[in-house]
Amino acid sequence: MKYEFPVTKTTAPKTKPDAKGLRFGTVFTDHMFVMDYNEKDGWNNGRIVPYGPITLDPAAVVLHYGQEMFEGLKAYKTAAGRVQLFRPDMNAKRTNNTNDRLCIPKVDEELFVDAIKALVKIDQDWIPEGEGTALYIRPFIFGDEAFLGVRKSATYKFMIILSPVGPYFENGLAPTKMYVEDVYVRAVKGGTGEAKCGGNYGGSLKAQEIAHEKGFEQILWLDAYEQKYIEEIGAANAFFVIGDEIVTSALNGSILPGITRNSIIALCKKKGYKISERKISIDELENAYHAGQLKEMFASGTAAIVSPVGELLYKGEDMVINDNKIGPVAQEMYDTIYGIQTGKMDDFMGWTVPVE
Amino acid sequence: MKYEFPVTKTTAPKTKPDAKGLRFGTVFTDHMFVMDYNEKDGWNNGRIVPYGPITLDPAAVVLHYGQEMFEGLKAYKTAAGRVQLFRPDMNAKRTNNTNDRLCIPKVDEELFVDAIKALVKIDQDWIPEGEGTALYIRPFIFGDEAFLGVRKSATYKFMIILSPVGPYFENGLAPTKMYVEDVYVRAVKGGTGEAKCGGNYGGSLKAQEIAHEKGFEQILWLDAYEQKYIEEIGAANAFFVIGDEIVTSALNGSILPGITRNSIIALCKKKGYKISERKISIDELENAYHAGQLKEMFASGTAAIVSPVGELLYKGEDMVINDNKIGPVAQEMYDTIYGIQTGKMDDFMGWTVPVE
Repeated sequence: MKYEFPVTKTTAPKTKPDAKGLRFGTVFTDHMFVMDYNEKDGWNNGRIVPYGPITLDPAAVVLHYGQEMFEGLKAYKTAAGRVQLFRPDMNAKRTNNTNDRLCIPKVDEELFVDAIKALVKIDQDWIPEGEGTALYIRPFIFGDEAFLGVRKSATYKFMIILSPVGPYFENGLAPTKMYVEDVYVRAVKGGTGEAKCGGNYGGSLKAQEIAHEKGFEQILWLDAYEQKYIEEIGAANAFFVIGDEIVTSALNGSILPGITRNSIIALCKKKGYKISERKISIDELENAYHAGQLKEMFASGTAAIVSPVGELLYKGEDMVINDNKIGPVAQEMYDTIYGIQTGKMDDFMGWTVPVE
Repeated sequence: MKYEFPVTKTTAPKTKPDAKGLRFGTVFTDHMFVMDYNEKDGWNNGRIVPYGPITLDPAAVVLHYGQEMFEGLKAYKTAAGRVQLFRPDMNAKRTNNTNDRLCIPKVDEELFVDAIKALVKIDQDWIPEGEGTALYIRPFIFGDEAFLGVRKSATYKFMIILSPVGPYFENGLAPTKMYVEDVYVRAVKGGTGEAKCGGNYGGSLKAQEIAHEKGFEQILWLDAYEQKYIEEIGAANAFFVIGDEIVTSALNGSILPGITRNSIIALCKKKGYKISERKISIDELENAYHAGQLKEMFASGTAAIVSPVGELLYKGEDMVINDNKIGPVAQEMYDTIYGIQTGKMDDFMGWTVPVE
């Protein structure tokens, strides 16, 4: 590691939760990473301190203008006891792309990864063991200057917190039920859709809440121009198996460049599967369904890795996909990525990074 | 007042700033309003306390997913010593429209206004006196549950802070210089453009920063579909005087329904002016300019009331509007609204509300 950080250890370690019954993102570990930014010193004072509340001026930019970004990745412990991360360099790169869009000062990518390693090392006993569990890592940055005019903040905080997690969806890999959203849109080209910033998520809650009230687990987002082309599934990327082609929506400026998405594409290429990044319309999907060619549909993201779609409601028709069961491509992608992440499978892609 | 709130007075009152040289949003008064929300009790424990830092769990929803909203209005003291607000009921209504879009629990509109009145009354000695000054009032609400899954927060804080302010733009009513933004967009129908939420502002910083670097004060936002129709100016609504018609972009789902915008429309109607809320394209504007019919262009918003546009760059052409001077319509709107707000003019619209 190039960077090292002073550590203040907690004097009151918390009780670790039982790995069984772990939910997503409700329990946090004993320590957190904090670093400050001001215009004179740049990023400075990176440190690991006991997990605890932060204080903010009520006029802090983040509370008013959403100048904030986040990332998500996971740490696992292999059977051999090796603690490892999955492609943290990708999170570091995406952080700086997001920062650029949100006018947040860039972070040295090696420092970003070293800070994660240092924090995970301190709290490695919190990594849960058991199928579907992991230590979720949440880096995030926000503007904290106390100023009410609309301009970028002069000061920032970069923090990392850790949460031992179980499956993102309560039912694990069970296929979900969703519909095609035709009122709200997630993003548009020229907006912030390809950045991992808070506003994208706050703005998506309404459509998600309505879906839940109607008894659906997720929504399928269409493009903002024509409500025609498929963009994302909830807060995840969308994949389809149509005949022998695996398809995901091409990055177009409004779709988040998911790291799991990128990994699935790379795996498919490595395995010689026919994989396409292209525009895919809801009508093409419907036609493929009626022609018996829509074999699978699934979402991809860090939290769940893959999440199969069992039912998709569109224009009053309930399309049942793959008999409401997880399909072979989704299953293989999950098994391979989770296998590599946990060390149960050889890392033939060179994706894991050890925490020494 | 229907609602009353317990008050904890500061024991360390701050020195009030000199009204001369006051900037926007950098100085805050001695007290703030805070109210909590949880699912069991609803909104509860509204209180006035000394202005000071708040504590948040690092996993608080507002720091990650931008579930946050704000409002802005002003209090003035008339020559006769009456403290008054300008149309606070409009802010209360818009708050609940925004809350609905962001899945934030609604606030009783009378409570919203009463909380503002109670806080302004306590800190009324902070209302600055002098041309262009006011006490700026910033109500805001954010989700503060410590939970990393993407769903609406179970708990919230509603706060109000006050800031004695000078003119929003350093040069007051001096005409600004802007260009037509053709890369970034502010909002799209189905998104959050008509809500007053943080994400809209965080997402707009990049375009604004680039404009500043190029020596422009603001940008003119076009629609996300065709980059053709005018939406807003910076974080304000857009007005044009074309021949004898006063035009503002019609509300279309992506434009913020400004209270100053609404007031200007009402004033124009009252005065018998020809005022239109309609689509207006950048090409129409350019043609009007070349025909000598583009008499005025100005932005409207709470912070500046009106802000004339002196130069507009579009496709390499620098359109100089009204000889780079404030025009008669903008001047009349400013004088009338500011006159009513400060009590220098009779409130013939019934817009002011006293703080007793």
